[in-house]
Amino acid sequence: MEPPVVGMAGGGQLARMTQQAAIALGVSLRVLAGAPDDSAAKVVPDVRVGDDRSRDDLLAFAKGCDVVTFDHEHVPGPHIVALEESGLPCRPGSAALAHAQDKLVMRERLSGLGVPCPAYAHVPPSDPEAFLEAFAAEHGRPLVLKATRGGYDGKGVWIVDGPDGQAERLLAEGVDLMVEQYVPFRRELAALVARSPYGQGAAYPVVETVQEGGICTEVIAPAPGLSDDLAAEAQSLALRVADELDVVGLLAVELFETETGLLVNELAMRPHNSGHWTIDGARTSQFEQHLRAVLDLPLGSTEPTAPYTVMANVLGGDDPDVYSRYIHVMAHDPAVKVHMYGKESRPGRKIGHVTALGADLDGVRERARHAADYLRWGTAMGEKVKREQK
Amino acid sequence: MEPPVVGMAGGGQLARMTQQAAIALGVSLRVLAGAPDDSAAKVVPDVRVGDDRSRDDLLAFAKGCDVVTFDHEHVPGPHIVALEESGLPCRPGSAALAHAQDKLVMRERLSGLGVPCPAYAHVPPSDPEAFLEAFAAEHGRPLVLKATRGGYDGKGVWIVDGPDGQAERLLAEGVDLMVEQYVPFRRELAALVARSPYGQGAAYPVVETVQEGGICTEVIAPAPGLSDDLAAEAQSLALRVADELDVVGLLAVELFETETGLLVNELAMRPHNSGHWTIDGARTSQFEQHLRAVLDLPLGSTEPTAPYTVMANVLGGDDPDVYSRYIHVMAHDPAVKVHMYGKESRPGRKIGHVTALGADLDGVRERARHAADYLRWGTAMGEKVKREQK
Repeated sequence: MEPPVVGMAGGGQLARMTQQAAIALGVSLRVLAGAPDDSAAKVVPDVRVGDDRSRDDLLAFAKGCDVVTFDHEHVPGPHIVALEESGLPCRPGSAALAHAQDKLVMRERLSGLGVPCPAYAHVPPSDPEAFLEAFAAEHGRPLVLKATRGGYDGKGVWIVDGPDGQAERLLAEGVDLMVEQYVPFRRELAALVARSPYGQGAAYPVVETVQEGGICTEVIAPAPGLSDDLAAEAQSLALRVADELDVVGLLAVELFETETGLLVNELAMRPHNSGHWTIDGARTSQFEQHLRAVLDLPLGSTEPTAPYTVMANVLGGDDPDVYSRYIHVMAHDPAVKVHMYGKESRPGRKIGHVTALGADLDGVRERARHAADYLRWGTAMGEKVKREQK
Repeated sequence: MEPPVVGMAGGGQLARMTQQAAIALGVSLRVLAGAPDDSAAKVVPDVRVGDDRSRDDLLAFAKGCDVVTFDHEHVPGPHIVALEESGLPCRPGSAALAHAQDKLVMRERLSGLGVPCPAYAHVPPSDPEAFLEAFAAEHGRPLVLKATRGGYDGKGVWIVDGPDGQAERLLAEGVDLMVEQYVPFRRELAALVARSPYGQGAAYPVVETVQEGGICTEVIAPAPGLSDDLAAEAQSLALRVADELDVVGLLAVELFETETGLLVNELAMRPHNSGHWTIDGARTSQFEQHLRAVLDLPLGSTEPTAPYTVMANVLGGDDPDVYSRYIHVMAHDPAVKVHMYGKESRPGRKIGHVTALGADLDGVRERARHAADYLRWGTAMGEKVKREQK
């Protein structure tokens, strides 16, 4: 009669924030972390330190768990298959997760389902530059080169003007490559849904995501000015993909909004940066929703708690003493919510996020940006404050 | 430049829920728990197992903390003084906490401040029954006997029709006793405020609390139909008491609403059952607010997230397998929030709470009650369900 133990492979901030939801639900979270000072390892008592790319470490960690889920996409598929063959439910399962682990597998499957995607092709190892030349002739320039596996936060993606030797160099390093048409998008959106083994689905409001240098810096929920039709289309698309791919847990579908409609950019099958706003801005946080889904519990309400919620990521800046800046941020805006990840601050690293809520979108964005910029600190912010003090 | 370590003496559900707030703020929570399976010990990595009534255990636990705070009122005052003399900030401090630890000290101080309280007296060890007879002649019957120290959840409180030997028996057992006038109240209210060392104060909306058998079973935020004047009076009273008593952290003031105005019933200087609704129902949870206060950070917004929030405590019932009943509760009401404390279910024990939010007060109360009753289960609920199924 003990509540279940959910194992999460990976000790990053997604596992850390899942712990907050596990505490409320009274379920036990066990984390497989790479190091004892990983973001989640600092806040979860049941930590196994190990390598989540090691089959032995993964199997040892999973023993005694009732279900295993993932903080990232980097656990090798064959290890997940081994877990499944041992009788342990992995959610999402290896077959679904393959589509979040390999961008080419994902593109082929989605195209097969008729889901709109940018034009793409696998880059052949022999004479890749000639291949890219032909691809560019058909789909235009620039070109988007992507490592099929292992990328995140803009890593593993290269935008090149044309064939310039980059593909050849990457292939020589052993990187499996695909090429995609560069999409001239209006903006990026994300549709976050959850699906349970029972088959229940739940969709959050569609959000706008703002990226800088391949890193998500801001999320606006709901996406301002998005038509009801496009919002419904994005939600339906995400629910359909979750269903077709047999996803269990969360599915984040990153989308390009273009002149001619929506195109799928990426998939993630876990809590996602585009859903951090739900901790403060929705009745059920994405972390609670993920737990409910992988435990096959009925899904929670995705109703927003405010007309607009804006999440801004806090990146590491010039001065790592972020805590000393809480006093300004909290005094300046008593309603802004601060979420820090317990990670060492390094320039450009995602070390936390802030959330602001309200009815006045411009004001809410400004509040979230101010808090995130101030916590980040750095030369630019210091100069802005100096200017304002003059 | 590491964020601070907050030590909390006591490993109950208040420490457990404080961990959720500590995770977001990126501060470290260390807990002194009586046993490794205490409610908070299950979710906090930095646990010291010991006796929080032992001076040695308390001092060892506190070493390395930046500030010490409390999950309950039962740490002996002299031990807190010893901590303070070692230079460690205790928040609230021993001088303030004495008023939450000893009901007679509290009554004397509040009366001295002109804060309205029920008539009270210390029960003398010699001929207590004659003393009570005289008290009853002046203030009416029944009488409320209270242990001056150590009570909680209705324990340490006895309502007697008159002098019946109960006081004599308790005194013989070494219980220090006071007597209070029985207040014919309309209802019970609670005013929750926070105060920082800097002197900032913040008040939550005043709530109505419903008790059964001395245990809080339901909290309605804000208290329905409470006039703006009485609400402001209750908030001002609580802020004034916090200031006069130099409280740092949260102060919950339990109040009787009577025909002639407000009377103070009890004080607590910590997160309080009457504030659990704030996790889902206010922009800043009481647990985050307590951390902000004891860390001398600016206090957070107490703005509600819905017109009404109702919290119902989940008590242990006949069938301890509470988790198996999540499926009904969550399917029945996807927006109800479940908070379980990781405590073994025993009949009548507080093992969790649920929260419902919305604009329709009757509907919100019914939703919270249904979820709490169903999770509790028991003969009465089983019979109700059987009747409905017929």
